[in-house]
Amino acid sequence: MGRAYEYPKKPQNTVKRYNNRGTYELGPIHSVINSSRVLHVSFAPSPDDPFPAILPMIGFMGSYDYPSAGLDEPLDCYLHGYVSARLMRLARDSEKGLPVCIAATKVDGMVLSLTPNSHSYNYRSAVLQGYARPVETDAEKVFAMELITNKVVPRRWEHTRVPPDKVEMTSTMILKVQVETGSGKVRKGEPHDEAKDLDREDVTSSTWTGVVPVWEAYGEPIPCASNKVKDIPEYLTSYVKDATAKNKSVALEAAEE
Amino acid sequence: MGRAYEYPKKPQNTVKRYNNRGTYELGPIHSVINSSRVLHVSFAPSPDDPFPAILPMIGFMGSYDYPSAGLDEPLDCYLHGYVSARLMRLARDSEKGLPVCIAATKVDGMVLSLTPNSHSYNYRSAVLQGYARPVETDAEKVFAMELITNKVVPRRWEHTRVPPDKVEMTSTMILKVQVETGSGKVRKGEPHDEAKDLDREDVTSSTWTGVVPVWEAYGEPIPCASNKVKDIPEYLTSYVKDATAKNKSVALEAAEE
Repeated sequence: MGRAYEYPKKPQNTVKRYNNRGTYELGPIHSVINSSRVLHVSFAPSPDDPFPAILPMIGFMGSYDYPSAGLDEPLDCYLHGYVSARLMRLARDSEKGLPVCIAATKVDGMVLSLTPNSHSYNYRSAVLQGYARPVETDAEKVFAMELITNKVVPRRWEHTRVPPDKVEMTSTMILKVQVETGSGKVRKGEPHDEAKDLDREDVTSSTWTGVVPVWEAYGEPIPCASNKVKDIPEYLTSYVKDATAKNKSVALEAAEE
Repeated sequence: MGRAYEYPKKPQNTVKRYNNRGTYELGPIHSVINSSRVLHVSFAPSPDDPFPAILPMIGFMGSYDYPSAGLDEPLDCYLHGYVSARLMRLARDSEKGLPVCIAATKVDGMVLSLTPNSHSYNYRSAVLQGYARPVETDAEKVFAMELITNKVVPRRWEHTRVPPDKVEMTSTMILKVQVETGSGKVRKGEPHDEAKDLDREDVTSSTWTGVVPVWEAYGEPIPCASNKVKDIPEYLTSYVKDATAKNKSVALEAAEE
């Protein structure tokens, strides 16, 4: 294996503080994006408006041209969201695409130290910056819809009524973000206290320190009133069980590292 | 009780699609901000940079002037974060404060319908826009540090080595965001499928539909190597247990509504 692909370090994405936690490698960054249920997508709504806007969206990394590309290879970020009109118009009308920033953060633990200042979270975060444009062709749209549906639950796409019909194709807007740069940050392990506090017996004898693991848990699937399938399908029960166990083990490993 | 306080509807925060899920009430919006472990804070780093920046930060709503103000009353958002230098400089150097956008989203369930297009999440999201400035006085800084520490774990502040010493006070930067406007969105309940699919026996007999509840779970606290307190304190064990149970019940209620 050669050197892992990295995003270029530019002024806007260089991790300046705690840079031992920073990463520019594509694999870990894309992995945080893909495992986060919701991404926050920021853009400038208009030159008159001083405030950036943020929309919560569902997104997944993929390559339409090289579908077999790995997570550690160059990928685009496909986005689907609800409040689309304004963002879609901006993306369509800008020549190069609309400059956006995409953020995702997974919290793995509460890090409880002797002093408030050194409290922290164990976490993995990722930020991408790139140009967003609407996906134009039906073939690429279906490719992205499958990625996004399978993000909600793996293998869900093949267990639903597909392909989307004409009305669904027209009404679905997908944004494709060509990533210019990105960065990630990871914090793992125990709290870090300073000698000035660790040496004080009155402080250490009264303050519990350590990590409380945090993870995303999934419950038993609850059928809706119109559901006609008696047994919960295996791909769903196994995902709910395995993914919760995996999420938990990631949190425990981060705590104990 | 009179009418609940609402954020003003301006072009930039008006929820345009699915507006039955939108809210402008202060209470629900502040509640999402306070219950989200990480907030994503967006700002424009410089006029030359086309891309907005996003930083993950810890934040909590509060009022220094009226500390007893309720969640449904006007509050400021206090922010603390790691990559602070650039943001802090911009906030200090801009006259009115730096325009920022703050986003938080809690996912309560995966909503699995007959077609990919009607898949969704049950969720609660909040977005605030306002002007950020560094907190100047030590008294207000301590007020904000206590809010933020108790966000990580309730009542944690009083169980740590406080007050912060001189070095800690100087090195800690807190941003105070005076909120100009905000909005929230909530999705609860079952999937919504269309008659064209619900009427097709071949589709309904092969596609399980319903909701998979999603919540944030907390594990047994894990002491670190330097910890000297033998028993995990009660405020911590009860929080871990009660908060996980409460998070789960919110997800189940959202699914069954």
